[in-house]
Amino acid sequence: PDPRRTRIRLAVIEGDGIGKEVVPQGLRALRAALEPAGVSVETTDFDLGAGRWHRTGETLTEDDMQRLAEHDAILLGAVGDPEVPSGVLERGLLLKLRFGFDHYVNLRPTRLVPGVASPLADPGEVDFLVVREGTEGPYVGNGGSMRTGTELEVATEVSLNTAVGVDRVVRYAFEQAQRRRRRLTLVHKHNVLVHAGKLWSRVVDQVGREFPEVTVDYAHIDAATIYLVNDPGRFDVIVTDNLFGDILTDLAAAIGGGIGLAASGNINPTGEFPSMFEPVHGSAPDIAGQGIADPTATVSSVALLLDHLGHEQAAATVRAAVEADLAARGELGTRSTTEIGDALVAAISGH
Amino acid sequence: PDPRRTRIRLAVIEGDGIGKEVVPQGLRALRAALEPAGVSVETTDFDLGAGRWHRTGETLTEDDMQRLAEHDAILLGAVGDPEVPSGVLERGLLLKLRFGFDHYVNLRPTRLVPGVASPLADPGEVDFLVVREGTEGPYVGNGGSMRTGTELEVATEVSLNTAVGVDRVVRYAFEQAQRRRRRLTLVHKHNVLVHAGKLWSRVVDQVGREFPEVTVDYAHIDAATIYLVNDPGRFDVIVTDNLFGDILTDLAAAIGGGIGLAASGNINPTGEFPSMFEPVHGSAPDIAGQGIADPTATVSSVALLLDHLGHEQAAATVRAAVEADLAARGELGTRSTTEIGDALVAAISGH
Ligand SMILES: CC(C)[C@H](C(=O)O)[C@@H](O)C(=O)O
Ligand SMILES: CC(C)[C@H](C(=O)O)[C@@H](O)C(=O)O
Repeated sequence: PDPRRTRIRLAVIEGDGIGKEVVPQGLRALRAALEPAGVSVETTDFDLGAGRWHRTGETLTEDDMQRLAEHDAILLGAVGDPEVPSGVLERGLLLKLRFGFDHYVNLRPTRLVPGVASPLADPGEVDFLVVREGTEGPYVGNGGSMRTGTELEVATEVSLNTAVGVDRVVRYAFEQAQRRRRRLTLVHKHNVLVHAGKLWSRVVDQVGREFPEVTVDYAHIDAATIYLVNDPGRFDVIVTDNLFGDILTDLAAAIGGGIGLAASGNINPTGEFPSMFEPVHGSAPDIAGQGIADPTATVSSVALLLDHLGHEQAAATVRAAVEADLAARGELGTRSTTEIGDALVAAISGH
Repeated sequence: PDPRRTRIRLAVIEGDGIGKEVVPQGLRALRAALEPAGVSVETTDFDLGAGRWHRTGETLTEDDMQRLAEHDAILLGAVGDPEVPSGVLERGLLLKLRFGFDHYVNLRPTRLVPGVASPLADPGEVDFLVVREGTEGPYVGNGGSMRTGTELEVATEVSLNTAVGVDRVVRYAFEQAQRRRRRLTLVHKHNVLVHAGKLWSRVVDQVGREFPEVTVDYAHIDAATIYLVNDPGRFDVIVTDNLFGDILTDLAAAIGGGIGLAASGNINPTGEFPSMFEPVHGSAPDIAGQGIADPTATVSSVALLLDHLGHEQAAATVRAAVEADLAARGELGTRSTTEIGDALVAAISGH
């Protein structure tokens, strides 16, 4: 990513439900943040998600993938509605993008901004980053069933883990820890999932030798959920596999003020493929169409996008705007999607 | 189990660390609770755990298994110490017992007693039961690695799920729900783990037809962790697989006042093998030997044991004693393991 680039080609997947409402606010924030640097954003809309599937039966074609690949990054809102069978869009669209574009880092920060309500009675300082592996583990789709639908059915799910895949994401996590509070926690379940667990532990040990300033510890996934509610301040960077990361980051989002605030980046650090930025929340059919969805998670995902493309100043501006807005929420009352977007854009633009 | 039986043959595995401190209190509570019914408890101590492994290299022999099998039930404290390599006692002892004695129901209740501190700011009424599958899923130990220790290592973990195995635990969960608030939640990740997920969903649908009074819903494991911190009162009975159950029940324990209070039963409902009751906590080497471990989780596990053996009245007495003790904790200050045991035994004996 070249910070001097004056034009960003952004693929936009609004998707379904509130995805269509929050993404426009994310785009406004993105443009406002890049204006001082004279960088323009050229968007291409991709019609992907439940809507397209209902109309055409397509989830994500080879042609879509090729056209998406021509962009510098992807901004995704949310996909899905209750009428699409479970797994169709997850496997055929979301995971196809993550796997197809080798998004091996799934980056999910949690920071509880003072003033934001947490479900915890005494959260303390909460500011950590989950580096979730994005292309391996139980998510690979390897498994099947026999005697399917009968009383004798056997169904399997296979978690695949490679040293190459673990090494690259662990390395990324150490680099993040080095730039933060220099504390890395591996989360796994190596006392039960011994083969994958040994691989993860070995790689963390080995890569850790290259980062002597980073303190490393380990927590089983079950214990990690306890720490998240009893002592979230202990965490700086967590590195973990795809499934454990999925679970931990939803819990983390809840603790950090709710899933409506949680940002994520599906990152291909090599730059070979476009990285994809999306709020952690879903399409929320229950509140869709009412203009009340909180665009904050999308705007924070835009900050991750800006970081990834080398616009760190702009990213910091967006983050500061979000934090100021969150800190003031107690006094602001209920606002619409657009009102929150307006406030964030104003703060980003400095007026 | 015959409630008129006047003698219970109990296998006792104190194990390591605080296991040795809490189990004696559990036994006192058990005997006190059974006294009014004139039932005696005959114990056999089994020397199992880290201590034995360090001395002999043995975890659990065939002979141990055969002798354990001659008992009506097993009471286990906790096993493990930091010097035993990860997985040795888990696979060679704890899981060997659960799998060998076909403990297909892993029963873990959570009830937040008014007066007990929860990490949640506003927990509301928390009273639910997790029915965790105990003999299948990612816990089966099926997996391996190749090019082990090299840069090209591939490691796998296979989750095995059978209709027979899912059916029996789901059926058990429905029976529990029928006797409680008639609400069952399946927790899985069927949008990603589609093969196992379809099997679980299908079985829940099918068995559910036999329980028309039970309302069934579903939550992905990631969303379930959010519900546990934002709205734990929504749950009555949760049924889930071995790994998801491991994660959810540690989080549940934290929310319910801490892992020091969480009880569990590893149950073989057919009675073919002895069921095993154990606190959810571990051997806690950091506080072992100081006489300060809380025996409450063990005493509550004794209540599950009594239920299982048909002594429901005695179980209710134990539970009432625990709840009264917990409710009074605010005023009681710090107490030793024995002091808590004394208080519980006194309450059980009614003086
Ligand atoms: C929708 C689903 C496939 C996805 C995941 O499991 O990764 C979501 O829960 C997430 O965390 O982004
Ligand atoms: C010690 C470990 C094997 C065990 C498990 O994972 O089941 C423990 O965490 C538990 O929940 O009883």
